[in-house]
Amino acid sequence: MTEHDPAIARLTQRPPQAEIDVAVGELAARFGNRLVTSMAVREQHGHNLSWTPNQPPDAVIFAQSTEDVSDAVKICAGHGVPVIALGANTSLEGHTNAPYGGVSIDVSQMNEILEVHAEDLDVVLQPGVTRKALNDYLRDTGLFFPIDPGADASIGGMCATRASGTNAVRYGTMKDNVLALTVVMPDGRIVKTARRAKKSSAGYDLTRLFVGSEGTLGIITEITLKLYGIPEAISAATCQFPSIKAACDTVIETIQSGLPIARIELVDPLTVRAFNNYAKLGLTEAPMLFLEFHGTEKGVEEQTTRFKELAEGNGGGPFNWTTKPEERTKLWQARHDVYWAHQTLKAKPEMTGFSTDVCVPISRLADCVTQTIEDAERIGIVAPVVGHVGDGNFHTGPLFDPNDPEDVAKAKNFVERLVRRGLDMGGTCTGEHGVGQAKIKYMREEHSPETLNVMRAIKRALDPQNIMNPGKVLDA
Amino acid sequence: MTEHDPAIARLTQRPPQAEIDVAVGELAARFGNRLVTSMAVREQHGHNLSWTPNQPPDAVIFAQSTEDVSDAVKICAGHGVPVIALGANTSLEGHTNAPYGGVSIDVSQMNEILEVHAEDLDVVLQPGVTRKALNDYLRDTGLFFPIDPGADASIGGMCATRASGTNAVRYGTMKDNVLALTVVMPDGRIVKTARRAKKSSAGYDLTRLFVGSEGTLGIITEITLKLYGIPEAISAATCQFPSIKAACDTVIETIQSGLPIARIELVDPLTVRAFNNYAKLGLTEAPMLFLEFHGTEKGVEEQTTRFKELAEGNGGGPFNWTTKPEERTKLWQARHDVYWAHQTLKAKPEMTGFSTDVCVPISRLADCVTQTIEDAERIGIVAPVVGHVGDGNFHTGPLFDPNDPEDVAKAKNFVERLVRRGLDMGGTCTGEHGVGQAKIKYMREEHSPETLNVMRAIKRALDPQNIMNPGKVLDA
Repeated sequence: MTEHDPAIARLTQRPPQAEIDVAVGELAARFGNRLVTSMAVREQHGHNLSWTPNQPPDAVIFAQSTEDVSDAVKICAGHGVPVIALGANTSLEGHTNAPYGGVSIDVSQMNEILEVHAEDLDVVLQPGVTRKALNDYLRDTGLFFPIDPGADASIGGMCATRASGTNAVRYGTMKDNVLALTVVMPDGRIVKTARRAKKSSAGYDLTRLFVGSEGTLGIITEITLKLYGIPEAISAATCQFPSIKAACDTVIETIQSGLPIARIELVDPLTVRAFNNYAKLGLTEAPMLFLEFHGTEKGVEEQTTRFKELAEGNGGGPFNWTTKPEERTKLWQARHDVYWAHQTLKAKPEMTGFSTDVCVPISRLADCVTQTIEDAERIGIVAPVVGHVGDGNFHTGPLFDPNDPEDVAKAKNFVERLVRRGLDMGGTCTGEHGVGQAKIKYMREEHSPETLNVMRAIKRALDPQNIMNPGKVLDA
Repeated sequence: MTEHDPAIARLTQRPPQAEIDVAVGELAARFGNRLVTSMAVREQHGHNLSWTPNQPPDAVIFAQSTEDVSDAVKICAGHGVPVIALGANTSLEGHTNAPYGGVSIDVSQMNEILEVHAEDLDVVLQPGVTRKALNDYLRDTGLFFPIDPGADASIGGMCATRASGTNAVRYGTMKDNVLALTVVMPDGRIVKTARRAKKSSAGYDLTRLFVGSEGTLGIITEITLKLYGIPEAISAATCQFPSIKAACDTVIETIQSGLPIARIELVDPLTVRAFNNYAKLGLTEAPMLFLEFHGTEKGVEEQTTRFKELAEGNGGGPFNWTTKPEERTKLWQARHDVYWAHQTLKAKPEMTGFSTDVCVPISRLADCVTQTIEDAERIGIVAPVVGHVGDGNFHTGPLFDPNDPEDVAKAKNFVERLVRRGLDMGGTCTGEHGVGQAKIKYMREEHSPETLNVMRAIKRALDPQNIMNPGKVLDA
């Protein structure tokens, strides 16, 4: 590619306004009042939960079918206009805003569950279905979809960002739970990546190429997911530890012993303080694990007993546990309320927070979390830690005043040091949030130039005009 | 691409002999006696376990390092000469022969285990390590690598073909168990796909793009695999059923109930006859399941009891089971000897067999297996069935006289009808063997032209000269 390559230009500037206007005109003719250009709707689609600025698209289309998406992409491709897909808009790293303008294709109305194959333990659905809607729909079947990133994200967005969350330690991430995708390619063609067979060696794994591609290679319009039987018994537990190291060592021993734990979440002492503020729990300000065990009745009893032994061996206790649904909810309530609890840590009301994540080999988890907490203290920023620690993955959300440049600088410095710490320990700059705009610069630190060039070669081959979500995942 | 595109020419013809000669000369200067051109060695490298013809390369290099592979690929790329990677040479669909000549890069001497990270449950190794060598090496660590495709395949080859096997129902396939790869690209550059973190959302999933790419996008020279703790208790069992349907229904119920079975293998009545021939077992000629349960002592006992209930509900029995290692081996012996047992079914000694596989949604498994058995009877061919049925995956290997054209035609017809039956049921033309040469034509039936064009676009972007294992996976 040369300096004057239009694809590079599109990474760094908007297309000519005239091209955008013509494309929007053609889209209006095709979509009628499902094309919206009001500033309120555009700004809503240029906003997300990260600290990236609001960058509204030029227009928003509310798609209702794969053909809608295909037609919209064809029109945009004809004029070199960027296309940004959007589902529930719960992005945490700036995936859905439109830095170079273009058209946001909102798939939230594509929210039908098309087929449930109970015998095959799979479901075919549209990308706008949210994970909670899916599980509500499945309730009577005895099946469930376990991936739980916290937010009620759309399944399409969860595919696009390779999401995971609390249950990943047992059930894997989105990459492990998608059987097939229908994708609208950058020229509008419709591609099905695979069939419903549980495994296949028939060619390149296009499914997993699109999972985690963040809308930069195509737009996901139909998804086949694996499902699981709702476990016969579920037990929940909490336990506190004298140190982050003691808690992490318990996690490592649990994973190593092959104990099939379903959830194992760490919160740091600062988060426990937040729980006390928020819900008057009166807990000691010490690290805490939230646990969930799935299996048969005897199986969960055995898992719970074994885990208790491991925890006590590391000085953990007391150990609260229950198998009753309503008590389980109560035990985990603090963890579910963590976002609200963290708000109580704000030194002044104008402060805001965001969430970012890294993932390290589990042997480095205690070091990484401990050093991160020490770093926040040293920098003088409030940054509570919550982790899906069975995977070596944790989150932190510094609180800062967005109007105080010093505060913003501190938060940026803290995140930069966090990511570098994770990378230095053999980890990744994002375990589950994705790259978006916010982590592009760390891609150059995580991957070699040769590795990034392979990614860029694939991007160029599939999207030569670079119209699919430009300015995300890869830079020029 | 035009008709005269050299990349297309290379799909359909050898490069000019002069180019091959110059490349081989340069390779000889670099590799000395690790470059071999004797016909015996070339033919050995042009042979595999499929029914594809022996197609020897022009030369064989015995690589000992990533740099060796990189240098060899650079020299071949400089002359447009094909490069074919080869590990243990246990391909079942014609992956390693050289239809358009070129250089076979034999990585079997790259057989070092580089790092075991016991705390992180991972291992870094070279591609020539075989799965049995890996598990022997790991024995004292209490860890193991579960993927078992039957043959003592190399880990590199297992990555390249997205292999799975008997344990996949519990532990997944290669795609689920590779954390990172080092790959020599078609221009000789060395790329690392990922780090050791258990999960990541940092960019395109290059790891899973190379897993299953069969050496057509690059050569795998280093692998990071997940490991698992050896289960505290293992129990093995066998059970016979009145019909294929009864056996398959038991499998479906087992999977649906969430029973975490480690192995569940079906053999058909013909295979049971073969067992009787081979080892005088005196079994009823009825379908049979071989089972293995992994877990804690109590857990395994509970799994076994529950499975027994499910089996009896479908008329299965009697049920033989044991937890003692030596008795387990005895119970499973027939299954391990299945290749030799099947030889006893030959009507004449000059007959040969091969193995091919399909995979269907599990709800269609009983239909697919039953119709396949009926089809073999109708066509008049002996084709025993063995299946990793927990995944909906099964194998069959017709016996035929390779010198009898009518016999060959019958075998080909049988396989063609098998694959189409699998595809008609929503399945895949290969669950775990890969495409190689033998299943290229079915790629056009399994995938749409648009899907194949996406695969071709990726191939062209990464290997514009089409020198990496040409004539495999994709046609022109």
